[in-house]
Amino acid sequence: MNSVILLKNRPAGKPSLKDFEFTEEEKPQPTEGEILLKTKYVSVDPYLRGRMRDEKSYIEPFEVGKPMESGIIAEVVESNNKNFEKGDFVNGMLQWKQFQTSNGTGLNKVDSKKAPLKAYLGILGLTGMTAYLGLEKIGKLQKDETLLVSGAAGAVGSVVGQIGKIKGCRVVGIAGSEEKIDRIQEKFGFDAAINYKTTDNMKKAIAAACPKGVDVYFDNVGGEILDAALANMNKFGRVINCGAISLYNEIKRPMGPRVETTLIKNSILMQGFTVRDFVKDFGPAQKKLSEWLEDDKISYLETVVEGFESIPQAFIDLFDGKNKGKMIVVV
Amino acid sequence: MNSVILLKNRPAGKPSLKDFEFTEEEKPQPTEGEILLKTKYVSVDPYLRGRMRDEKSYIEPFEVGKPMESGIIAEVVESNNKNFEKGDFVNGMLQWKQFQTSNGTGLNKVDSKKAPLKAYLGILGLTGMTAYLGLEKIGKLQKDETLLVSGAAGAVGSVVGQIGKIKGCRVVGIAGSEEKIDRIQEKFGFDAAINYKTTDNMKKAIAAACPKGVDVYFDNVGGEILDAALANMNKFGRVINCGAISLYNEIKRPMGPRVETTLIKNSILMQGFTVRDFVKDFGPAQKKLSEWLEDDKISYLETVVEGFESIPQAFIDLFDGKNKGKMIVVV
Repeated sequence: MNSVILLKNRPAGKPSLKDFEFTEEEKPQPTEGEILLKTKYVSVDPYLRGRMRDEKSYIEPFEVGKPMESGIIAEVVESNNKNFEKGDFVNGMLQWKQFQTSNGTGLNKVDSKKAPLKAYLGILGLTGMTAYLGLEKIGKLQKDETLLVSGAAGAVGSVVGQIGKIKGCRVVGIAGSEEKIDRIQEKFGFDAAINYKTTDNMKKAIAAACPKGVDVYFDNVGGEILDAALANMNKFGRVINCGAISLYNEIKRPMGPRVETTLIKNSILMQGFTVRDFVKDFGPAQKKLSEWLEDDKISYLETVVEGFESIPQAFIDLFDGKNKGKMIVVV
Repeated sequence: MNSVILLKNRPAGKPSLKDFEFTEEEKPQPTEGEILLKTKYVSVDPYLRGRMRDEKSYIEPFEVGKPMESGIIAEVVESNNKNFEKGDFVNGMLQWKQFQTSNGTGLNKVDSKKAPLKAYLGILGLTGMTAYLGLEKIGKLQKDETLLVSGAAGAVGSVVGQIGKIKGCRVVGIAGSEEKIDRIQEKFGFDAAINYKTTDNMKKAIAAACPKGVDVYFDNVGGEILDAALANMNKFGRVINCGAISLYNEIKRPMGPRVETTLIKNSILMQGFTVRDFVKDFGPAQKKLSEWLEDDKISYLETVVEGFESIPQAFIDLFDGKNKGKMIVVV
């Protein structure tokens, strides 16, 4: 038999285990042209919360009663497709099932000799691409500029900050615990860090940590931290709106200070960033990140949880900041 | 003697005549290298309200007790500077004085044979540059896209819409009276128009007028109309934050729905636009606008008020929408 995780109902506010349902189905059989995949590593990410809402976005919403899906590394255990061999590993958007079939569309083979398989879900996967391409395509970060990053201890944020240091920038991170603040400075080399949970006035704290103002703000959280960052942006500053985890579980439409006069005063750019818009740029980005990894210029953390049955809880834990870096479930 | 208009106090809310003071001073004498200028046409513009606040922006605030200034066409009535002759006309940021001296810095000569002098404050001046360069540099408007414009009957908005039609786009305007709605469709060729003062649900009204969604929104007003436009933006939509007249007279920091999740969902760009950032591009923009004017592809309206003493009231009238197109005072 084959275990499957379904979306049971759309969460109101923070997701809970009650929003997911485990079910069993027949183990599928690959037909002509298909492969049978065994799930090995499952990526859980904050953006999945958005897909649990019933609203139009850059990606279709999940359907109630249907399987969840996310980035997954799977092993080819049977192949009726000449492009894949038994024993290959592939990376793609796959369903939360122990076994599933595929015709190969949208799957990329990954090489376990070049990097640990898990890395293809993180630093060499969408996480690394998000950090690299967000900074390059929207941030257009230049040497000697000041880069501010929220969610700085997270999977994306920690890579963003390290790229900023490689590019010769002052890098300031925002995170939610003393342990994270220490980590991003000691392990990831950020120049300064702010614990937003113990800071009363974020606007002043950012001003103090960024004496030359902020040129690029890579935002993973949205909300009041974004407000405080905007108040510190330099002329021609750029805001990469990559995530808004502080708002994902809000039920009402969140309100805040209007941004338009701030944008006009300092010719500031804000742009929503979704890594899927830049698939054609993944090749060069992955090459650069691989080089930095080999040269020990960049490092990453993973929180690895074991067991297919742990996937929903691992996802929920993201919203309590329980992960260190990339959250991955090993099946 | 020489009449001068000073900023008497920083307005709280909407400016009134009490915020200005008329005074007299000695008529100045040009020294070596200087010219004496006689004010002919004075441009009054909504953005001056921002300079009346005591806060940092893209341009220095006005000082209380000092003369106001704005875009002015003046005649050279005496010259001790080899670059200018008596009888020349110049355009520049000048003080609200009947006469003033200058060393010529920042002044451009204008040719009254090529276009009416007043046009250099409007369609061939900052107004035209704002419309043209905002659309080009941030909007990157393409044929067959849908362009939405607020303040559509105003000096900038009416030019924006006409450029959109020249480029082969569907153009929808937002304005605040039936007469303006008629004008932008009949005189300026907009495809559709919305009277925001008589429309309950702007979000639905924009959706109805823009059946293919909005690709570029040229925003002169900010506030709730911006909210409604954002809700209708297509994937990769661009918002040119050019003005926010609906907020300029607010005393408290205005609040509204947060934009970050909307930007992320549809990869939307919002960018503050200030025409002064693009001075190096004025030449080609002015050339293009002149061609369109000569070919009758573009037209403009002016509201002309007479008398130096009318300048403050003409400025105040902008906030009640009393102008048709560009507001100019003839001295």
